[in-house]
Amino acid sequence: MLHFEQELDELKAKLLGMAVAAETAVTRAIKALVERDDTLAARIKEEDKILDRFEMEIDEMAVDLLTKAPLASQLRMITVAMKAAHDLERVGDEATTIARRALELNAEPQLKPYVDIPRMATLAMAMLKDAMQSFVDRDPAKARSVIPRDKEVDALNKQLHRELVSFMVEKPATITRGLHLMVISKSLERIADHGTNIAEDVVYLCEAKDIRHDPEVKRGPTASGGPMRGA
Amino acid sequence: MLHFEQELDELKAKLLGMAVAAETAVTRAIKALVERDDTLAARIKEEDKILDRFEMEIDEMAVDLLTKAPLASQLRMITVAMKAAHDLERVGDEATTIARRALELNAEPQLKPYVDIPRMATLAMAMLKDAMQSFVDRDPAKARSVIPRDKEVDALNKQLHRELVSFMVEKPATITRGLHLMVISKSLERIADHGTNIAEDVVYLCEAKDIRHDPEVKRGPTASGGPMRGA
Repeated sequence: MLHFEQELDELKAKLLGMAVAAETAVTRAIKALVERDDTLAARIKEEDKILDRFEMEIDEMAVDLLTKAPLASQLRMITVAMKAAHDLERVGDEATTIARRALELNAEPQLKPYVDIPRMATLAMAMLKDAMQSFVDRDPAKARSVIPRDKEVDALNKQLHRELVSFMVEKPATITRGLHLMVISKSLERIADHGTNIAEDVVYLCEAKDIRHDPEVKRGPTASGGPMRGA
Repeated sequence: MLHFEQELDELKAKLLGMAVAAETAVTRAIKALVERDDTLAARIKEEDKILDRFEMEIDEMAVDLLTKAPLASQLRMITVAMKAAHDLERVGDEATTIARRALELNAEPQLKPYVDIPRMATLAMAMLKDAMQSFVDRDPAKARSVIPRDKEVDALNKQLHRELVSFMVEKPATITRGLHLMVISKSLERIADHGTNIAEDVVYLCEAKDIRHDPEVKRGPTASGGPMRGA
């Protein structure tokens, strides 16, 4: 049993290592965009392969642990590790998308100063980090607090989308650049979704309760039950 | 043990039921677009909730089975069921996206006849169906044959994207409609990705071999090792 706990700790450590790698990939992809750094952008694709390998290794360790008749709480930990690894692998895919679009954008004059995108990136990355921290601390309250923050990133994405459509309508020469920026914005919105997924998994881990698709949780504590409910 | 096998069969049956529901949602979303049927589009959101519930039920059954010390092959079946359920839930999300964009598009004159989109939908749905059939038949060869077909859907998505950009540049009044169609096209491309994921899971189920991120498999049997390799 002691050996089993050790292996479970290794699984957790591997997942944390993967989270750091995923965060690094996103940070670099945004840096490659903002600083118009092609060399950095080209490196993200290599880093994505590391994340792919992480996911496969975590799956292998998890399946191996599952064969060893874990207790219910250990079992939840193992399935959550597999799910979180899948989300982090997808975060890596989004970083690759951002880097690829950054390379395209860097080849043309800058459409507008990048203000909303770094802001969205900061919010999405903070959600991802807090979700992982709630996993380390086994803190379901912290995990729950991550979930409603997704709405903020969604709102920024929609706002930027509208702004870019106006640009494109006024000046069709900006259409291609506008589309690249829309894709990057959507990628960041998806990274926030992955942070949300991990947070929901942590609640399940701690409370043995599946809160996915629960509108109350998504709404957040302040709004729930208030006068705006259902409005 | 007989009881365990029965429960495993129930899990499989539930997953097949979920696959049918996911396919129905996509078919209806495309029908709502092509036939400009708002009533049908509005129904998809309700159906998505059914898929969300399916995924949670499958996860619950799977975790319950995992506590009962399954054999290695049964263990693979259970984890594959969880992963496939996640992919099918995401297919439902894409159907919802398509339906939402169809509602927007139906409110305006049709930009162009829908030719590529129904074609992409047919290809993506066939991939999904064949992946599920390979699961039912435990047929890794059939599963492997699904994977390279993803390239065809990718190519159609890119082609439609280029065509829509030309439309938008020539006539900025078409930008909003063009963007809706791009989102729908991307959703179909993602549905094909989910079909690919399920097919990769079936190979793992049958061969205990993780083929995700293996470029040879993605390339397909005809091209592998040919003169174009690495070109």
